[in-house]
Amino acid sequence: MILINGKEQSHVDVSDRGLAYGDGLFETIEIADEKAIHWHRHIERLRLGCQVLGLTCPDENILAQECDRLIAGITKGIIKIIITRGATGRGYRPSQNPNTTRILSIHPWPKIPAVYYNEGIRLYSCETPASINCKLAGVKTLCRLDQVLAQSEWVEGEYEEGLMFDDNQLVIEGTKTNVFIIKQGTLHTPSLKCAGIKGIMREIVLEIARVLNIPIIETEISKTEVIDADEIFVCNSIIKIWPVREYLNKQYAVGDITRKFINNIGHIE
Amino acid sequence: MILINGKEQSHVDVSDRGLAYGDGLFETIEIADEKAIHWHRHIERLRLGCQVLGLTCPDENILAQECDRLIAGITKGIIKIIITRGATGRGYRPSQNPNTTRILSIHPWPKIPAVYYNEGIRLYSCETPASINCKLAGVKTLCRLDQVLAQSEWVEGEYEEGLMFDDNQLVIEGTKTNVFIIKQGTLHTPSLKCAGIKGIMREIVLEIARVLNIPIIETEISKTEVIDADEIFVCNSIIKIWPVREYLNKQYAVGDITRKFINNIGHIE
Repeated sequence: MILINGKEQSHVDVSDRGLAYGDGLFETIEIADEKAIHWHRHIERLRLGCQVLGLTCPDENILAQECDRLIAGITKGIIKIIITRGATGRGYRPSQNPNTTRILSIHPWPKIPAVYYNEGIRLYSCETPASINCKLAGVKTLCRLDQVLAQSEWVEGEYEEGLMFDDNQLVIEGTKTNVFIIKQGTLHTPSLKCAGIKGIMREIVLEIARVLNIPIIETEISKTEVIDADEIFVCNSIIKIWPVREYLNKQYAVGDITRKFINNIGHIE
Repeated sequence: MILINGKEQSHVDVSDRGLAYGDGLFETIEIADEKAIHWHRHIERLRLGCQVLGLTCPDENILAQECDRLIAGITKGIIKIIITRGATGRGYRPSQNPNTTRILSIHPWPKIPAVYYNEGIRLYSCETPASINCKLAGVKTLCRLDQVLAQSEWVEGEYEEGLMFDDNQLVIEGTKTNVFIIKQGTLHTPSLKCAGIKGIMREIVLEIARVLNIPIIETEISKTEVIDADEIFVCNSIIKIWPVREYLNKQYAVGDITRKFINNIGHIE
């Protein structure tokens, strides 16, 4: 079932600005036992994204009601929320009082092999750059062509994720994950000041690091620093944490610190 | 009237990748006396954009037939073509054989005051950066949030266009136009290697410059170079050429070289 502005529908107006200009945001949320996991974190990110885009964020209660309606009876799945600036005429300039479009849809839970968690994944090195834009960095907008083209680079099944760099050759993120490296006991992750999406699971990993007293550095990271890392892992709200076992023909063990994060991921609300 | 894959429709599938990820392209074409102006140039840009995105470009004859159907009887207007990678499930990775969606729609011709051509326009200096991405630069993709946010910066009626810079403070383009400056008889325009859209009218301006033996430099341009220019103008397929009469409180006359371009714009096919 799909709800568009609260009504069961499967089509949107062709003049919706989400389609015309990528003028909107989205969230992808885990459903487990009829609950939307980390709901408040996702809604908070949506609210911050709306601020950046100058959009009126839909009322949280309305979103929650619509979400509840969709996830009733679902033990495992994904709910996706799209917010757009709504349907208008041609032209980039937003109207003064846009009627935002909200789209909530249910998707099946993906089958993820246990080996990705136990032994790690193979990380591809993407050539498609992550766009640099200090105003939009961090926000999960509908403009995701970078990720689409990056995922097109490798044949499905040969790698499980791809690492993306900006045009300055700095590490930004995975195509659908955030990336962390561990070097001499310290956790490093790209600061995402001018590119990338600030993931909910990234936030949770940083919180776990603080609880576990693991030093954190949010900084610029080069490809060499990834190669030379002791441990590498990627994360997002759906997969949680995948250790990396191979990057650019180098092998990595699933290290103790990565294991600590995996073991603690379920304990953060 | 709107044609979606050849059928009269006004709604698209909510799972269309154009909406989900900005995964597509568009063209905005002038209609005059039942003709789509510079049709072959627009289709060629669409074809090149499809190559960058790894999309199968719709057959030109089909696009032409659908265009003819829509513009019959129209003496002045705009036809917009959107091509997306079509409807799929969740996930950035494109399917192997996507059914692209093509959307052709008719829009009214905007009223443009004659004074914009005779005396020039006021150019705002935008803070929203143009995204840097060397792979997508030049292509008119559906990911246009930069332009949407840039146009939101000024109150309608106070300026007619806004100038955009990338995060390296280089001039890229107007929010809906390409920009040219003239200094000591030479035409300068941003090279758009890593940001911006390569406009059809930009291409035509460069062709006119070659015909008129006006030297061209496609290069990096700073804000100071714009301020210090002898003449400034912006252009696109709909407005053609607007001289700039004001930028950052400095006044500019409509210069002889800009006039030459305006006078010659109608002579290029």
